[in-house]
Amino acid sequence: MLDKKIFKHSTQLRVRNYEVDWQGIVHNGNYLLYCEVGRVEYLRHIGAKVDLNSINSDSRVVLVRNEIDYLAPAMFDDLLIVSTRISFIKNSSFAMEGIVERASTGERIVENVAYHVWLDPKTNKSKPVPDDMRRLVQSFEGEHCSIEWPSVDV
Amino acid sequence: MLDKKIFKHSTQLRVRNYEVDWQGIVHNGNYLLYCEVGRVEYLRHIGAKVDLNSINSDSRVVLVRNEIDYLAPAMFDDLLIVSTRISFIKNSSFAMEGIVERASTGERIVENVAYHVWLDPKTNKSKPVPDDMRRLVQSFEGEHCSIEWPSVDV
Amino acid sequence: MLDKKIFKHSTQLRVRNYEVDWQGIVHNGNYLLYCEVGRVEYLRHIGAKVDLNSINSDSRVVLVRNEIDYLAPAMFDDLLIVSTRISFIKNSSFAMEGIVERASTGERIVENVAYHVWLDPKTNKSKPVPDDMRRLVQSFEGEHCSIEWPSVDV
Amino acid sequence: MLDKKIFKHSTQLRVRNYEVDWQGIVHNGNYLLYCEVGRVEYLRHIGAKVDLNSINSDSRVVLVRNEIDYLAPAMFDDLLIVSTRISFIKNSSFAMEGIVERASTGERIVENVAYHVWLDPKTNKSKPVPDDMRRLVQSFEGEHCSIEWPSVDV
Repeated sequence: MLDKKIFKHSTQLRVRNYEVDWQGIVHNGNYLLYCEVGRVEYLRHIGAKVDLNSINSDSRVVLVRNEIDYLAPAMFDDLLIVSTRISFIKNSSFAMEGIVERASTGERIVENVAYHVWLDPKTNKSKPVPDDMRRLVQSFEGEHCSIEWPSVDV
Repeated sequence: MLDKKIFKHSTQLRVRNYEVDWQGIVHNGNYLLYCEVGRVEYLRHIGAKVDLNSINSDSRVVLVRNEIDYLAPAMFDDLLIVSTRISFIKNSSFAMEGIVERASTGERIVENVAYHVWLDPKTNKSKPVPDDMRRLVQSFEGEHCSIEWPSVDV
Repeated sequence: MLDKKIFKHSTQLRVRNYEVDWQGIVHNGNYLLYCEVGRVEYLRHIGAKVDLNSINSDSRVVLVRNEIDYLAPAMFDDLLIVSTRISFIKNSSFAMEGIVERASTGERIVENVAYHVWLDPKTNKSKPVPDDMRRLVQSFEGEHCSIEWPSVDV
Repeated sequence: MLDKKIFKHSTQLRVRNYEVDWQGIVHNGNYLLYCEVGRVEYLRHIGAKVDLNSINSDSRVVLVRNEIDYLAPAMFDDLLIVSTRISFIKNSSFAMEGIVERASTGERIVENVAYHVWLDPKTNKSKPVPDDMRRLVQSFEGEHCSIEWPSVDV
């Protein structure tokens, strides 16, 4: 169970009619999209110029794994609160956690952990997460994000 | 890494133009949908009258967790092979594994494990997977599916 | 060019990242969905218990034609204003018009006219739009909606 | 009613489970996507290097209007035949017609006309459809496509 108290960023979205099936329940594929909305808002909020899943000139961030737990169904017209944080940064990878809740009741709808890797687009090999990204995340998340700094040869 | 050799069911689909972004790479949210196509085809193939995620009169099967590993991107117009199997049935839960491969190269695109639970729609509590479902799966999967049978009081 | 001044209902939505292509431009298929969000909100607002495109016990409303003009592209994160009205009700058909605008600039993004027909679900033949629907629309729209009332034999 | 006999290009696709609502009927928004699949296949088939709705260095083709008539619902698992043709090319605009049919019965599902305009991406003003595009279409469509050739000053 992800600990909501250590999430510092939230955004809202409303369930649209074409996202639900006849029971008024959101189709399972849409929750990943909701969590992605949260991640994009988070990165913009902390000032990271990271275009997830897209190519920049010298680096590319790719999503390598998603884990999603479906705890309760969202319904048509529900206002949802999507909370997002970065839980760790290792050498070339980092994880973004998401929690989706129903605003009216606080009920938890889904939990998501999305694992990303930093790649060199020329070689397609992993490369270290840039230091300025580590600094932005450390500054925003503080103690609750586990950040490995690259060892520096002396 | 899921073992492709023990998958006995496959279906095919072709990547459509509106499923990809500007790089010709399929958006991450679509792979879950591809795996769902595989699961629906699988269940129909083995003769299970299970409408995943929907309500029948006396039972309801809900998706409770998805794990998906993105190994390589699918491109516009790729023909994809989606292989599906049920890896275990416990008392009230079961798991469906999926592998998506590019037909032209055999390259593995994603792996997915989708966990489901059988519910009583009146109480919303878990209930045992029906015996006829266990029989259908055992008959189709044989030794590679771990099936727990409910203990019978003697 | 639809006349915005005679639209009495508006709702808002924000463009989500997965709805756009690499230029940050919304894929053309999504605008129809935005207009549908507007129609659902409109019908709820005027108190019509019409579940468009779905079956009730004794009648069924089906969408028979969509016309959509793309005037300017919506971008990622744009806040959109979707305005909706019913422009006419004939014997068994009615039309819903939609205008999507960018909130920040007032620029018009798309115009849509969606034609619907009332069906008898048993015979699949058209049947008159119910009088209580005509009354709700006339009360809300006033003079700008052209409503034909069924002739009454005297 | 579009005349099927003069369509020379068809492609197939199968309705996927997540495209339908509880009645097993495809959601109206998906038919535009099916027709777009047909258009992309058509352009590739005739050898046109036209990436609809995207930017090339010196020209950009934009979709300006869609008309779609819903004649019968497609169901889950239906194999659909999508037929596509270019019906006219004027100075800077052209129209692509689409017909979607159910393969098993030949029943017509939808008809679509999609109007496009050729733009200069620098000025965003319309520019003439290139002559090589006119030649490709004339060669493929023959007499049934109305093609205006730019007048040549003598």
